[in-house]
Amino acid sequence: MSESNAVLIGKKPVMNYVLACITLFHGGAKEVSIKARGRSIGRAVDVAEVVRRKFLPDVKVKKIGIGTDQVEAREEGSQPTNVSTVEITLER
Amino acid sequence: MSESNAVLIGKKPVMNYVLACITLFHGGAKEVSIKARGRSIGRAVDVAEVVRRKFLPDVKVKKIGIGTDQVEAREEGSQPTNVSTVEITLER
Repeated sequence: MSESNAVLIGKKPVMNYVLACITLFHGGAKEVSIKARGRSIGRAVDVAEVVRRKFLPDVKVKKIGIGTDQVEAREEGSQPTNVSTVEITLER
Repeated sequence: MSESNAVLIGKKPVMNYVLACITLFHGGAKEVSIKARGRSIGRAVDVAEVVRRKFLPDVKVKKIGIGTDQVEAREEGSQPTNVSTVEITLER
């Protein structure tokens, strides 16, 4: 899948990311990948559900994957920490 | 799938739910379903990742589903709200 069709979920309101997804689909994308980690994971699910149920009923969830990223510690000498990740692939 | 092999994720520490999953697998379960909604969704992913990576490497993610529940409004007369849900099925 092309990485350019990825929407990275951060701390903005859900609707911002919903709009990003819709814009990609309207631009001709067949697949859009919603990626999040840590505390944004719940928001990624919200985005996928709103896109699918409210705006683009022909869009389906193709695949959902979970994983773990290792994040460098902010302070020197401390251990890297693990953060969970999710990737939800929507397909039209 | 038998509903008795479900672990419902709430607001307790991740390790509580990890232990619940491990106990079910040790009790002979072939599948354990981790369910969460709203703000607990991120924690559900954490639980699945910790079970799989730290404790039971032979456990795989079989399926992940997302959905939306309608929740009754707390105050009379107000609209019901939607909450996202996730179900992660682990298989050994």
